[in-house]
Amino acid sequence: MSYLPIQQLLKTAPIGTDVTVKGWVRTKRESKNAVFIALNDGSTINNIQIVAEAGQLPEETLKLITTGACLAATGQLVESQGAGQAVELKIAHVQIYGPADPDKYPLQPKRHSLEFLREIAHLRPRTNTFSAILRIRHALAFAVHKYFNDNGFYYLNTPIITASDAEGAGEMFRVTTLDATRPPLTEDGQVDYSQDFFGRETNLTVSGQLEGELGALALGKIYTFGPTFRAENSNTTRHLAEFWMIEPEMAFYELEDNMNLAEDFVKTVIRYALQHCADDLAFLENRLKEEEKTKKKEEQSEMSLLEKLQFVISNEFVRLTYTEAIDILVNSKPARKGQFQYEVSWGVDLQSEHERYLVEKHFKKPVILTNYPREIKAFYMKQDEDGKTVRAMDVLFPGIGEIIGGSQREDDLDKLTARMQEVGIDPETIWWYLDTRRFGSAPHAGFGLGFERLVLFVTGMGNIRDVIPFPRAPKQAEF
Amino acid sequence: MSYLPIQQLLKTAPIGTDVTVKGWVRTKRESKNAVFIALNDGSTINNIQIVAEAGQLPEETLKLITTGACLAATGQLVESQGAGQAVELKIAHVQIYGPADPDKYPLQPKRHSLEFLREIAHLRPRTNTFSAILRIRHALAFAVHKYFNDNGFYYLNTPIITASDAEGAGEMFRVTTLDATRPPLTEDGQVDYSQDFFGRETNLTVSGQLEGELGALALGKIYTFGPTFRAENSNTTRHLAEFWMIEPEMAFYELEDNMNLAEDFVKTVIRYALQHCADDLAFLENRLKEEEKTKKKEEQSEMSLLEKLQFVISNEFVRLTYTEAIDILVNSKPARKGQFQYEVSWGVDLQSEHERYLVEKHFKKPVILTNYPREIKAFYMKQDEDGKTVRAMDVLFPGIGEIIGGSQREDDLDKLTARMQEVGIDPETIWWYLDTRRFGSAPHAGFGLGFERLVLFVTGMGNIRDVIPFPRAPKQAEF
Repeated sequence: MSYLPIQQLLKTAPIGTDVTVKGWVRTKRESKNAVFIALNDGSTINNIQIVAEAGQLPEETLKLITTGACLAATGQLVESQGAGQAVELKIAHVQIYGPADPDKYPLQPKRHSLEFLREIAHLRPRTNTFSAILRIRHALAFAVHKYFNDNGFYYLNTPIITASDAEGAGEMFRVTTLDATRPPLTEDGQVDYSQDFFGRETNLTVSGQLEGELGALALGKIYTFGPTFRAENSNTTRHLAEFWMIEPEMAFYELEDNMNLAEDFVKTVIRYALQHCADDLAFLENRLKEEEKTKKKEEQSEMSLLEKLQFVISNEFVRLTYTEAIDILVNSKPARKGQFQYEVSWGVDLQSEHERYLVEKHFKKPVILTNYPREIKAFYMKQDEDGKTVRAMDVLFPGIGEIIGGSQREDDLDKLTARMQEVGIDPETIWWYLDTRRFGSAPHAGFGLGFERLVLFVTGMGNIRDVIPFPRAPKQAEF
Repeated sequence: MSYLPIQQLLKTAPIGTDVTVKGWVRTKRESKNAVFIALNDGSTINNIQIVAEAGQLPEETLKLITTGACLAATGQLVESQGAGQAVELKIAHVQIYGPADPDKYPLQPKRHSLEFLREIAHLRPRTNTFSAILRIRHALAFAVHKYFNDNGFYYLNTPIITASDAEGAGEMFRVTTLDATRPPLTEDGQVDYSQDFFGRETNLTVSGQLEGELGALALGKIYTFGPTFRAENSNTTRHLAEFWMIEPEMAFYELEDNMNLAEDFVKTVIRYALQHCADDLAFLENRLKEEEKTKKKEEQSEMSLLEKLQFVISNEFVRLTYTEAIDILVNSKPARKGQFQYEVSWGVDLQSEHERYLVEKHFKKPVILTNYPREIKAFYMKQDEDGKTVRAMDVLFPGIGEIIGGSQREDDLDKLTARMQEVGIDPETIWWYLDTRRFGSAPHAGFGLGFERLVLFVTGMGNIRDVIPFPRAPKQAEF
């Protein structure tokens, strides 16, 4: 007999008909007259309640119905007598697919710490919290593709293995098939990469931007959405060695177009999640409220999760230059009272505390900062006429600080190569990138958004390792 | 002044209004009375014709308008006097963004070989052929996400860097941050991976399937769509070292459900491309026809590109077992006449010539073969009761042979571990995979589709390096 996912079953609720459901037991509760089983199949955070009369199921079957066991149940869908659910399934037949020995199955119906669940990342998608996160992650990923497709962008798969190391975005992982113990050496004792698989030294990409620009200067508007890598030995709640990045690049876009796109994009995907993940977000909102209660009053967030999401989609982002922001920060109360951990003055890179002050205290709106000092930004950003700043933009969010970073790109070949030489990058290593400025150069712009940062923001989770199925971090590559 | 992508402009064609277009010059043609410029912005395969009166543009501007140059042109959209286009732009103003020196720009308006274009992969998206391929690739990728989203699947990002090497799907790339010349060694002279970034030896994934199964046994239906890697030193038109794979996994699906899904899925995404990429497909159809003309009569394809795509979406796929297929092949004319290059008998792995005979000659329909001998299939496939075959399925297409490979998965812990031991895989190395059979096991199934194989089929191209933006192959990692 064919079966319906529980999500559809609860939505259509064909009361009075015979249905089959399949899923995993969340809880079993026995009363004098009946057995109540909460079954979940991962399609939704909501369980379906299955009811058997006392004595209806053989003792050996009942014994196998424990938390985590997998079963199919057939019966009539009826209006529920109890509180908490509209419908329930009156069991006629049950088939156990796979039991879950209660003495060994690690996921029992009690509160598990996130740390513990990280150690059993192969099973944690079976919990309410992680299934909600993964469904929201899916919805956000789909919203990203839908947004760009609806707006005339083409998805471009930039390479994962790359021989270019010009971006300078961070330390890289080497990709090789050479003998690990005794690699072939050149005469001067260096590893002879000409014998490696690709005939040269190769690494995992840190960004698809440079190749993305090649695409934009041919197809007009492109976006990437793929894995990127950083071999930084930092064990924090905000860093992963492997994470997914979204990088749109647009020919004929200048800085203001770029800002308009970034604002519209991030609002649209968050709105999509609010529309499509109401149940999962409500669950995580409550989860966060409970967590907040355990904190000291002054550390509690002023906004609930849903309030924070509404805050972003319902406010126009404030736009100002870095220089204007520095003025505000220098004259702010925390600066005058020495409450910032890092000092602030023109030329410094802003810290999260500064970004959050602007968003949460000063403007009480999301903020886009532009025209940063060239010294603290990448070589490919378009230089302003003043010779001091570049057409960069950072989008700042409450709680999280920078969520998007981008810029108009330098389209003048001479300025670009001069800047590369200043920062010590040999233009020859990315001759192909420079060809786009040599032949048919055009004003263009783009930005990058770390996908896990977005999922972190939308789910309200505190550790980035909890918003990707199988996190990769120093000493962490299990599963 | 804001501008319209050429695709939108040609669609809406607001005749009589002033518009701005931006793009790259494809060709310039001068007659006695006028200059005609074909401009393309990558949004569509169609150019817009721009017309200037003779003498209207300054000589120095005209000189810069060469193939590959980038410009913005403003003027009135009018009905075209000439043949070949419905509308054209009567130029009022032109701005050159970036010239393209005709003596140096490699893409001139003539036929370039695919081999040559592969060497300038950073510029080839500016050609008709490659921009068409990349737009179709985008449409197919979006269709994949849309199909699974519409059908209740969740997108699961399985890890790219992995410590598991149990799949045995092929040779792997090592990922490391150890010193390449002098790696730390253990006492017995082996590389000491405990000092590597992840504290163990890690590789690039060859498949997300095993982690995908973890997801399916929690969320019900998931799919992956990400890069996978093979370090095989094979320089063919069908292999890449880095390619994108689509792998759905479904709890509660058995072999027949898996076949139904695969057939519906591949038909739906091809139908989507036919609906959304008509112009690009028409261009590639003609391209292929021209190419076919250069071949000997007997090597020419019986179907045009569009006929082949219609063939797939309009036929029910024939389903038969491997054993039945062997019967047909053994009694076939080519077998009796000794025309197959590889001999065929029960137990052998089918070659492309056999698969194509079944599809193109015998059934004249796409074919799904099932229940292959266990010895030629992977350890995780569900064993049939006969002890000889497994619940595998391969979907075979004309011209290309196998396009999808999948199976129902072995959900019995004892059978699975016994089979692993038979083929020499230590169950301990993937304890987490076996946990899904230990706790709440369920019937489940899934399949894999190499995305570039699909793009190859839909675009009618002959070399897989031409359907991915920046191909990675032995000695090939430029850009």
